[in-house]
Amino acid sequence: MTSVHLDLGHASYDILIGSNLLADVSPIVRLLPLPKVAVVTNVTVAKLYLAPLQAALEAQGVSVLPICLPDGEAYKTWETLNQIMDQLLASRCERKTTLIALGGGVIGDMTGFAAAIYQRGVPFIQVPTTLLAQVDSSVGGKTAINHPLGKNMIGAFYQPRLVLADLATLHSLPTREYAAGLAEVIKYGLIDDPEFFVWLEQNMGRLMARDTTALAYAVERSCRNKARIVIADEREEGQRALLNLGHTFGHAIEAGLGYGTWLHGEAVAVGMLLAARASHLLGQLSEADVARISRLLQAAGLPVEAPTLGFERWLDLMAQDKKVEAGRIRFVLLRAMSQAYVTHLDTAQLRQLLS
Amino acid sequence: MTSVHLDLGHASYDILIGSNLLADVSPIVRLLPLPKVAVVTNVTVAKLYLAPLQAALEAQGVSVLPICLPDGEAYKTWETLNQIMDQLLASRCERKTTLIALGGGVIGDMTGFAAAIYQRGVPFIQVPTTLLAQVDSSVGGKTAINHPLGKNMIGAFYQPRLVLADLATLHSLPTREYAAGLAEVIKYGLIDDPEFFVWLEQNMGRLMARDTTALAYAVERSCRNKARIVIADEREEGQRALLNLGHTFGHAIEAGLGYGTWLHGEAVAVGMLLAARASHLLGQLSEADVARISRLLQAAGLPVEAPTLGFERWLDLMAQDKKVEAGRIRFVLLRAMSQAYVTHLDTAQLRQLLS
Repeated sequence: MTSVHLDLGHASYDILIGSNLLADVSPIVRLLPLPKVAVVTNVTVAKLYLAPLQAALEAQGVSVLPICLPDGEAYKTWETLNQIMDQLLASRCERKTTLIALGGGVIGDMTGFAAAIYQRGVPFIQVPTTLLAQVDSSVGGKTAINHPLGKNMIGAFYQPRLVLADLATLHSLPTREYAAGLAEVIKYGLIDDPEFFVWLEQNMGRLMARDTTALAYAVERSCRNKARIVIADEREEGQRALLNLGHTFGHAIEAGLGYGTWLHGEAVAVGMLLAARASHLLGQLSEADVARISRLLQAAGLPVEAPTLGFERWLDLMAQDKKVEAGRIRFVLLRAMSQAYVTHLDTAQLRQLLS
Repeated sequence: MTSVHLDLGHASYDILIGSNLLADVSPIVRLLPLPKVAVVTNVTVAKLYLAPLQAALEAQGVSVLPICLPDGEAYKTWETLNQIMDQLLASRCERKTTLIALGGGVIGDMTGFAAAIYQRGVPFIQVPTTLLAQVDSSVGGKTAINHPLGKNMIGAFYQPRLVLADLATLHSLPTREYAAGLAEVIKYGLIDDPEFFVWLEQNMGRLMARDTTALAYAVERSCRNKARIVIADEREEGQRALLNLGHTFGHAIEAGLGYGTWLHGEAVAVGMLLAARASHLLGQLSEADVARISRLLQAAGLPVEAPTLGFERWLDLMAQDKKVEAGRIRFVLLRAMSQAYVTHLDTAQLRQLLS
């Protein structure tokens, strides 16, 4: 087991990474202010991991309220959030009841947001069971739900007290979801970790085979990269925006096709490639570098062709994103390989890129 | 104009108190990161103050999105909150759009919560137009909406950047709402300010006549009391709970009769008297002191008789409140006049009190 520490001053927590961590719940139990938790999960994950987690907690004297939601990004809504609230209230959960998110990014984002606003805030623990959640969404305290007019539009910055990333859970992931997680792993290499990018080029075969040692390394290095950026800028007033590499395009794809049609990681993969192409158009990245990125994404089983949305629709969807400042759409591009930076593109540039 | 400063380290702001403050919006404009605001108000307040506020802001080059909600505690719900979100998104409000709450406690609580969660947090300014909002709900960063199973169950601690309390707006308040605000004013005297309690006994006539000098003094002293307590304990881990004097009983009355039947301040008035009676049962407060409190509440036009809910219903409603710890219901009682403290009451004591 390795551990990445995230210290934000007002909040500080460990990300524990290892195989079969769910077999020992004492790191969770140690942090509970009251021996009472609500485990929020979805129907798919519940079948695999809810019973053992619940049994392990109960064996240590913790009372467990399981809250089981439908599975999928399409359910990351007010209505589903309200189901959590209803059950917490019906079971009279108090301010010291801890919420545990057991699942992927959708469950983590919704449970974190529920913890942020239930009785103005209750303790919260992340148990991510997808690669995407382990390397990205469970770390850093961004929580949210979607709105028909935009992704993650309603949410809070709310840090967990612990992230428990059990690599064993990744073996049950469907291929497509696993690949979607690799998109965020590749992102860290592209933002500012060239050594990691090369490592990924050399080890994608092992990662695709879900080799435990390679996975442990990739998850830990991703978490370290993310932790470093979040510590420097928790509320995204500066460099945290770099983590959005591929996301302005990606969110437009997700919203444009309807949430859940493309997985978030798939949309981000194409978004990163579009960012690379835009960087090439600006003369910052060679054709060869763009091809290198495309090859790595393909090796990870990710799409590299943007869906056809039509230029006006692209523009409209991106203008709706949170990444808008004073009416200009913000993008993360590459100054060179592994040198991401924040900028704005004008309509003419976007038209050239997207048509 | 007087000013009370509230410094919480991570957040720091002024509460400006005076007559006709709305005539000069420069203290608001100075704080805007972008010349764009959404003014959230209700149909009643809009008729009185929206047009002049909007005109004054626009005269200084600020673009204003007015969001007008229905009036009343019954609308402090998910559904109404969603109306705010829908309009912010439809108008493409960004992270630097400031939300201004123009109205009483319901508008302030909902707007503050909307600001806390819209795009994970946008700037927020309080312009309270009721006495209750000026002396209590606009100060200290508690924001929330109600849930069918309990009051203020869903919310956030989220501080405004400015509170602008224009005493002139109090002249338009209906008598019942004005009295409801006085309940919270009296509360500060009861918690730990005996000198203020005596001042209130001597000056209730002037306050009932809405004498500007007396009002300015009462609002400022109330805000200073509240600011001191909030600074010491922003997240209600200790002494901030004293501000809930009368509120465990009060919330039960509000929920039990249906939100909006009794005004919050009316329910708190009776709640404070019940707390005083409980303190008397425990031998801590004399019959004369209880009578003194009752007289002051009556002089302020407030109810002093609890509604008939039935003991089991009382118990059930109070057990649902946020003020529950490890299954025990928390109450704020009086050790003596103006010496509030936090304790728990058992069922037998509650039965004696409430039947």
